[in-house]
Amino acid sequence: MKAAIFRGPGSIVVEERPIPTIRNNGDAVVRIVRSCVCGSDLWFYRGISDLPHGGVGHEFIGVVHETGADVHHIKPGDFVIAPFAYSDGTCPNCQAGFQTACVSVGFFGQGGEDDGGQAEYVRVPMADGTLYPIPRGDYADDVLASLLTLSDVMGTGYHAAVSAQVKAGDTVAVVGDGAVGLCGVLSAKMLGATRIIAMSRHADRQALAREFGATDIVEERGADALARIMELTDGVGVDAVLECVGTHESNETSFAVARAGAIVGRVGVPHGVEIPVEETFFRNVGMRGGPAPVRAYMDTLLPEVLSGRINPGKVFDLEIDLDNIAEGYAAMDERRAIKALIKVSDL
Amino acid sequence: MKAAIFRGPGSIVVEERPIPTIRNNGDAVVRIVRSCVCGSDLWFYRGISDLPHGGVGHEFIGVVHETGADVHHIKPGDFVIAPFAYSDGTCPNCQAGFQTACVSVGFFGQGGEDDGGQAEYVRVPMADGTLYPIPRGDYADDVLASLLTLSDVMGTGYHAAVSAQVKAGDTVAVVGDGAVGLCGVLSAKMLGATRIIAMSRHADRQALAREFGATDIVEERGADALARIMELTDGVGVDAVLECVGTHESNETSFAVARAGAIVGRVGVPHGVEIPVEETFFRNVGMRGGPAPVRAYMDTLLPEVLSGRINPGKVFDLEIDLDNIAEGYAAMDERRAIKALIKVSDL
Repeated sequence: MKAAIFRGPGSIVVEERPIPTIRNNGDAVVRIVRSCVCGSDLWFYRGISDLPHGGVGHEFIGVVHETGADVHHIKPGDFVIAPFAYSDGTCPNCQAGFQTACVSVGFFGQGGEDDGGQAEYVRVPMADGTLYPIPRGDYADDVLASLLTLSDVMGTGYHAAVSAQVKAGDTVAVVGDGAVGLCGVLSAKMLGATRIIAMSRHADRQALAREFGATDIVEERGADALARIMELTDGVGVDAVLECVGTHESNETSFAVARAGAIVGRVGVPHGVEIPVEETFFRNVGMRGGPAPVRAYMDTLLPEVLSGRINPGKVFDLEIDLDNIAEGYAAMDERRAIKALIKVSDL
Repeated sequence: MKAAIFRGPGSIVVEERPIPTIRNNGDAVVRIVRSCVCGSDLWFYRGISDLPHGGVGHEFIGVVHETGADVHHIKPGDFVIAPFAYSDGTCPNCQAGFQTACVSVGFFGQGGEDDGGQAEYVRVPMADGTLYPIPRGDYADDVLASLLTLSDVMGTGYHAAVSAQVKAGDTVAVVGDGAVGLCGVLSAKMLGATRIIAMSRHADRQALAREFGATDIVEERGADALARIMELTDGVGVDAVLECVGTHESNETSFAVARAGAIVGRVGVPHGVEIPVEETFFRNVGMRGGPAPVRAYMDTLLPEVLSGRINPGKVFDLEIDLDNIAEGYAAMDERRAIKALIKVSDL
């Protein structure tokens, strides 16, 4: 099979690899239909994070090809979404809806010998707890794209909004205009926010943010962004903040624009972040969030996608095949694309 | 009138001062019935925080003596509770229930020329927004003591539990066995926690914690406390944590014992605290809290006290008169007393 292989910063190549096989009785092997490149893939692509060379990619939907002897809830032929983390589904943390903190948690596409989700096939550990079956149907390409977002970006944007405890009537700031931030805008809208301030300086992303429900765009950054948001909120700040970047500056802005008592829902993996301990304390500003338990949100989000009420797949503005995946990384790295969808096979 | 005056670390003296007068039209002057010494007073008493020499104390109940021309909801003769912060009651933050972030907020007993609440009389700015009237009645001493706790410690313990989002059936850890921590135990019980782990190494505080609803006592600290709580929770951690101390070590323990997805409700004023940014992120551990908007909780807590369903006044284990207030500070400093009540005048 073909698989995208990370060969060091800036280098993604497609190589032939054996089709994965069942290694443990709880495994499944999935034939991938759609995959994509994640904003977080850029951390290792840019050399900011270390990753062993090897298989990468952690967002995919596909058809179950083979299952191990202990897999009972998933069977060959099932159409499934895989969350970016695999989990047993039975431990106390899974039962509490935090599958990304499963006692046996693992993440797809961590390089090395393991295969990733940017490939034709992938081995899925703990298939019963991990894979989420979708009714088999004759889905249009745009629906497949939206289903694919439930494996990571839409569930992650939704986690930011849930963590920030967005409620009806809120004014919300979304920090970050990547695919996750845009899905955060859509999620804030779903949860009833009436004013959504998207922070973006790219015209195409601003347009999609508005389509997803943003009512205001703030192009400024740092102190200027704070001043602008305070102006927009009569000096009070916003009721909830979605932190969808993970840098120190984006966190600083997030905590600063929060009104007293607000919560920063953070889903951007922190890189060099310091949290202002006393300033947040004296203003009763909270924080929640982390790696999104996207598995927990599929019950809520799948009907929204299947009914067409939400179309998060619009975050994909580049469609390629697996052979050209290097172009997907490059386009996202150079901000020529928000997010690249990889058409691997037909459903 | 007599007033407690801070004269530097370790030195609290009682001096004669003029009875305060109305300075602004929104002011009231209150004759104090009961006052007390706060654990946070020990920060300046011990020389850890700076405070200008002068009037101190921020917890009191009393009878309104005089009101300014613009005071309409409070009148002379009213029996009132004062929250430790004064607030206008009308700004967006007050309206949202965060009076400690009022745009005009101020705090009683900040030293200098202003008078404090450890005195016979005190000036209360923004009386309409600040003071909370209690039905006039023939209250027993123990009820007066419980009413007094609504000015700070009980409302603060309750804020820790509300911030940590304690819900029915939860397992909760309370870090800190001071009066606030003990009120935190009582609050967790009120909110339906079924297992409450109080961290305490003092027999008298352990006994009161158990009376307030603690089901388990952990005497260990640091890594040993973490190990013990993990043992008590089958390795999962607790559903909610109440941080009622404010040191780096107590925060470290609080974040470490939280299960994935739990919230640390912090009310201990942070001194030298660093928040573990990545560790909290990867386990989806949140934090909320800050200076408690105790004014917002009086509607909920007053009926509980008046009905006798809760008796937070039991945190007072030393009763003195104003002349002997220095002994109250010394006893709390030396941990001979949990909290000293000051009997200032009759209702």
